[in-house]
Amino acid sequence: MTTVNDSPTQLTDEEIFQAHQGGKLGIDVTAPLSDPRALAIAYTPGVARVSRAIAQDAGLAAQYTWTHRLVAVVSDGTAVLGLGDIGASASLPVMEGKAALFKTFGGLDAIPLVLNTTDVDEIVQTLVRLRPSFGAVNLEDIAAPRCFELEARLVEALDCPVMHDDQHGTAIVVLAALRGATAALGRDIASLRVVVSGAGAAGVACTKILLAAGVADVTVVDSRGVVHAGRDGLNPVKAELAGRTNPRGIRGGLADALRGADVFLGLSSARVPEELIAGMAPEAIVFALSNPDPEIHPDIAARHAAVVATGRSDFPNQINNVLAFPGVFRGALDAGARRITENMKLAAADAIASVAAEDLAVDRIVPSALDPRVGPEVAAAVARAARQDGVA
Amino acid sequence: MTTVNDSPTQLTDEEIFQAHQGGKLGIDVTAPLSDPRALAIAYTPGVARVSRAIAQDAGLAAQYTWTHRLVAVVSDGTAVLGLGDIGASASLPVMEGKAALFKTFGGLDAIPLVLNTTDVDEIVQTLVRLRPSFGAVNLEDIAAPRCFELEARLVEALDCPVMHDDQHGTAIVVLAALRGATAALGRDIASLRVVVSGAGAAGVACTKILLAAGVADVTVVDSRGVVHAGRDGLNPVKAELAGRTNPRGIRGGLADALRGADVFLGLSSARVPEELIAGMAPEAIVFALSNPDPEIHPDIAARHAAVVATGRSDFPNQINNVLAFPGVFRGALDAGARRITENMKLAAADAIASVAAEDLAVDRIVPSALDPRVGPEVAAAVARAARQDGVA
Repeated sequence: MTTVNDSPTQLTDEEIFQAHQGGKLGIDVTAPLSDPRALAIAYTPGVARVSRAIAQDAGLAAQYTWTHRLVAVVSDGTAVLGLGDIGASASLPVMEGKAALFKTFGGLDAIPLVLNTTDVDEIVQTLVRLRPSFGAVNLEDIAAPRCFELEARLVEALDCPVMHDDQHGTAIVVLAALRGATAALGRDIASLRVVVSGAGAAGVACTKILLAAGVADVTVVDSRGVVHAGRDGLNPVKAELAGRTNPRGIRGGLADALRGADVFLGLSSARVPEELIAGMAPEAIVFALSNPDPEIHPDIAARHAAVVATGRSDFPNQINNVLAFPGVFRGALDAGARRITENMKLAAADAIASVAAEDLAVDRIVPSALDPRVGPEVAAAVARAARQDGVA
Repeated sequence: MTTVNDSPTQLTDEEIFQAHQGGKLGIDVTAPLSDPRALAIAYTPGVARVSRAIAQDAGLAAQYTWTHRLVAVVSDGTAVLGLGDIGASASLPVMEGKAALFKTFGGLDAIPLVLNTTDVDEIVQTLVRLRPSFGAVNLEDIAAPRCFELEARLVEALDCPVMHDDQHGTAIVVLAALRGATAALGRDIASLRVVVSGAGAAGVACTKILLAAGVADVTVVDSRGVVHAGRDGLNPVKAELAGRTNPRGIRGGLADALRGADVFLGLSSARVPEELIAGMAPEAIVFALSNPDPEIHPDIAARHAAVVATGRSDFPNQINNVLAFPGVFRGALDAGARRITENMKLAAADAIASVAAEDLAVDRIVPSALDPRVGPEVAAAVARAARQDGVA
């Protein structure tokens, strides 16, 4: 019998709450006000000259304010981690953590802006009014399908990078990991049969990036079964997916989709029985990304699959968004990009995969979440792609 | 002939723009993410426990997020320093400077939120939606008379400290300085005849705090002359002032008001001829606070007045808001105050005056703007007053 390791890193409530005492962020004054002269430069009367210069040439704001490296981490608290709709205030510790990740891995400043409205019009309106205050928007933990409309509306309304990380951060790292897995196995990504379990924010974005990367055979399964054009009551996002996926015309549930498939990509909390994984094709790839409880325990999946990945740090092959978003925003802001294009996302995935390639194995298909090489590599690749796409 | 010092601290454009390169603020991560365990505590999975706790008890947000010490510095850029309506983006260097002052003198974190709308309803709505993101609101550089309605509406709409600093920060320090001046001269504040030149944000708030402090005879003069009930076209704020000021029924202009007055309080850019100051009562007090050009040069005013103060750091008696706002917000937030009351402002003025009293002279009526004793003294006094008033 395979040993099943069921103990993640043991954290006590005491140390968690202790570490959160007073919150996790502070403001750092980069221009000290230690003496009258410093004060006269950074505040009145000196600052007036800088304000006047920006009033005459709005482009100077990027140079003389913190906005050129400032990401607004925006949430309405409706889909927070596995906790669901817990509200804006309760989402704040997560957003502070996200801001801390932006700083640590991207060298970017980030401020949480949590909203006690869930109305798309109101959120768009709020950020449009605040536009001069930041340089980019990272949407976070906003429930599907509202997140799709919100992101699209914001991309339209704001002349700066906007990305819903639960969608595209996940998609970028999943694509990078799939490149790593196929490289480790000597397989071709284009010929894979992929089954995506979950049609929420992450499931939709992963499906789209896999299609964009040349995966021809993707089937999406949600709580009601396989997504296909003949199904009643599809929302517009799922209807679009139905038109672009499931080339074999599979009907039924997850069992029907997984039979003989090469890749299982788990992005919902739905459990997967061992026999379904056992029924996949030889050399199967299993990404069981539900957190904190993977769709199938990785040790059990490993009985049948050649590569297994999860979202957890206590197993090999952790698929963690932190590999993507700090570098994506850093590259977009460094380039002065007005938006984040599909090519920028694909470039980010390639950059992550190229770091992994230096030390690739079936249990090292992605770099460690703490690997300091990743952020700068991703940023450089994203900035290049932004210039190629003409959005910078 | 008195020597007139016309050279403020000489600052070159080069050093000012150099100091503003990249802006003046950054985010400081107070819970490091240096290793997998730290990451698991500050982000997933650990953070979920903190979010769940706040979802169950909203009051815990103050303890486990940075909001309990976070001030939103809010501006629409319509009355920035002496530059006027230069817009939100150009106001940002000033707001970053303000945030730096909050940190340095109040130990508070502050984020600039600059809005590209000047509509009162829209600004109120925006801050109501963002309410879970911050602990207090400092309104800054918003034009009169809109600033009065905006502040009143926000005080009503938000359950947290809200203060328009151009009004009340100035008023608090002016009152403290007047206490210092009268103490240095051995005079009684209640018996003074005060003339306030300017009926904008600062003029209105200073008039009100002087009345609240027991000054019986205040006359307000704006660009059209003495504010009195018989004047046509008074806006509601000036109409209210007219009913509470000018007990002698003075008509006419600044010359008429200043004849025989004890105090000149200059809060507009209107120049005051030397002969008007010469015509004030003996032992006159002149606060010429227009920046960077005082209403009358302090060396000239000193020929006729017993005490002269300006807003500038290169003359004695600098009346600078930084003596007030960091401690006021710190005290209000420390006490958990739901709003800022009149008594809290009066207590702040008393606290500033009490620090000055330790080393009082006609050229030391207020502490230095950089005096590190002031912030904590003001904070303690404000927190006490908040508890006495039952708003904490």
